[in-house]
Amino acid sequence: MNSIVSGFGRVAILGTGLMGGSLAASLRERLPAVERVAYGIEPDLSRAMALGLFDRRAEGVAEAVAGADLVVLAAPISVNCALLPEVLAHLPADALLTELSSVKAPVVRALHEALGNPGGQPDPVLARFVASHPIAGSERAGPDAARPGLFEGRSLILSPLPASADDSCRRLHALWSALGARVEQMSVEDHDRIFALVSHWPHAVAFAVAAAVAADEGQPGAARHAGPGLLDLTRIAASSPALWADILLSNREPSLAAAAAVDQQLQAIRRALQSGDRAQLQALFGQGADWRRQYG
Amino acid sequence: MNSIVSGFGRVAILGTGLMGGSLAASLRERLPAVERVAYGIEPDLSRAMALGLFDRRAEGVAEAVAGADLVVLAAPISVNCALLPEVLAHLPADALLTELSSVKAPVVRALHEALGNPGGQPDPVLARFVASHPIAGSERAGPDAARPGLFEGRSLILSPLPASADDSCRRLHALWSALGARVEQMSVEDHDRIFALVSHWPHAVAFAVAAAVAADEGQPGAARHAGPGLLDLTRIAASSPALWADILLSNREPSLAAAAAVDQQLQAIRRALQSGDRAQLQALFGQGADWRRQYG
Repeated sequence: MNSIVSGFGRVAILGTGLMGGSLAASLRERLPAVERVAYGIEPDLSRAMALGLFDRRAEGVAEAVAGADLVVLAAPISVNCALLPEVLAHLPADALLTELSSVKAPVVRALHEALGNPGGQPDPVLARFVASHPIAGSERAGPDAARPGLFEGRSLILSPLPASADDSCRRLHALWSALGARVEQMSVEDHDRIFALVSHWPHAVAFAVAAAVAADEGQPGAARHAGPGLLDLTRIAASSPALWADILLSNREPSLAAAAAVDQQLQAIRRALQSGDRAQLQALFGQGADWRRQYG
Repeated sequence: MNSIVSGFGRVAILGTGLMGGSLAASLRERLPAVERVAYGIEPDLSRAMALGLFDRRAEGVAEAVAGADLVVLAAPISVNCALLPEVLAHLPADALLTELSSVKAPVVRALHEALGNPGGQPDPVLARFVASHPIAGSERAGPDAARPGLFEGRSLILSPLPASADDSCRRLHALWSALGARVEQMSVEDHDRIFALVSHWPHAVAFAVAAAVAADEGQPGAARHAGPGLLDLTRIAASSPALWADILLSNREPSLAAAAAVDQQLQAIRRALQSGDRAQLQALFGQGADWRRQYG
């Protein structure tokens, strides 16, 4: 597939860490005719260039987006939001705009604000915006963790706005599909609710279990006795505390709702355990087991 | 290493599922001169024989333990406890006794009761008892999941009683080491407290998160959107609800203490999220991350 088939001649990627770097690496491998332009903070930007992930580096937002057919915001969510005014000021007239944040509502709010349009009135730029969330990650970060296969076989959620043009969705759908992702579409609200429950709050749970083990003051202590089950359960607790604090705060209300849903299950289990109600305990565990056993 | 070096000529294993089967398979591979005698429920017993895990099957407890140098209780904990009176009635005078339950206190209580010795007075049989807990498992169960490498490189906790003879500890230490396990010794009380925190309650957490995801009634629902992080976190929720209800109820007070420790972390995270306290949220996450990053 070449740049004509992909529909994009030049892609500007703002943010050159795991996500932006992997997108560049995937484009290089699957759509080598697409020109990849990088902009981001140091030392990641220079490292991404040294790794050969990009064709060209820009020294600012204006230079990065100039002449791009597609602009991808691939920085942490607060940075993506902060970049929007300058990106919109320089966005070429026909370029599409997407962003890879784990939470969508704050980016959409920032987009409306940057357009001087906090009420969310239709605006021609909105037709060219569709949010993208690749359901792929790593507890590692930075350009050195980037790899071309990151999106291969993974889900990618496209979240259009009511004002997004069908053609914008179609073109981004084709691009992500060409990089191996399984594309699914849902609203910004559904996205943020679902990912609070399947990703954002589970990270908090993993951090909490890991912290409880680490805090055990017994002698011998619990901290040295992790088995494979606990290590799997807490694998995502090796992720960046700053990044996940950012994500949870960005998706606060849905995350608190997810916290309440998990807490309801935990308290029901505690009550059944406290009262010695074996049938109830087994039934509660069975609800989780039935779901989990669908996966390998 | 032969049976003289291992110090055991015949090992009776009561329970032929994952643990008992894997112990038999490991003995066959590492200490082939040791005779392996099986007793357990059907269809597992016949299946274990058909898989060649054992040299001989017994039709009852008395037949199984007759002539054994070592008797291993490898059934679920409530079955191990229930088997004790009959095992003790037939235990050869010099045989060692161990058991592989995930919780130790109830087995020790059942042992004292079976000896007509609920106060835990010294008894010659106690000198020959040491509890063993292989920190190895699988979300799969039954003899088909048994494999000789299960204990290889894994921790094994030996929990002697105050009355256990040093020689009993030494012989069991040598046996498990010969099967590739890294043997560590701690009291029954430390064992149950630590494993409530690093294993038993984390299973409840995994079941709870899985159940909360499964219960989401949104449209589209959360249940189809599990990413690799959630699947790792909930891997142990594919375990047997009956087995884990059994384990948690057997270790109720330490598990409730572990539940309280995890809950304290979770509620602190919820409060920081609710109040938008980024520094506090990041500090709480950092406690878990610092511990988890010690492991790969």
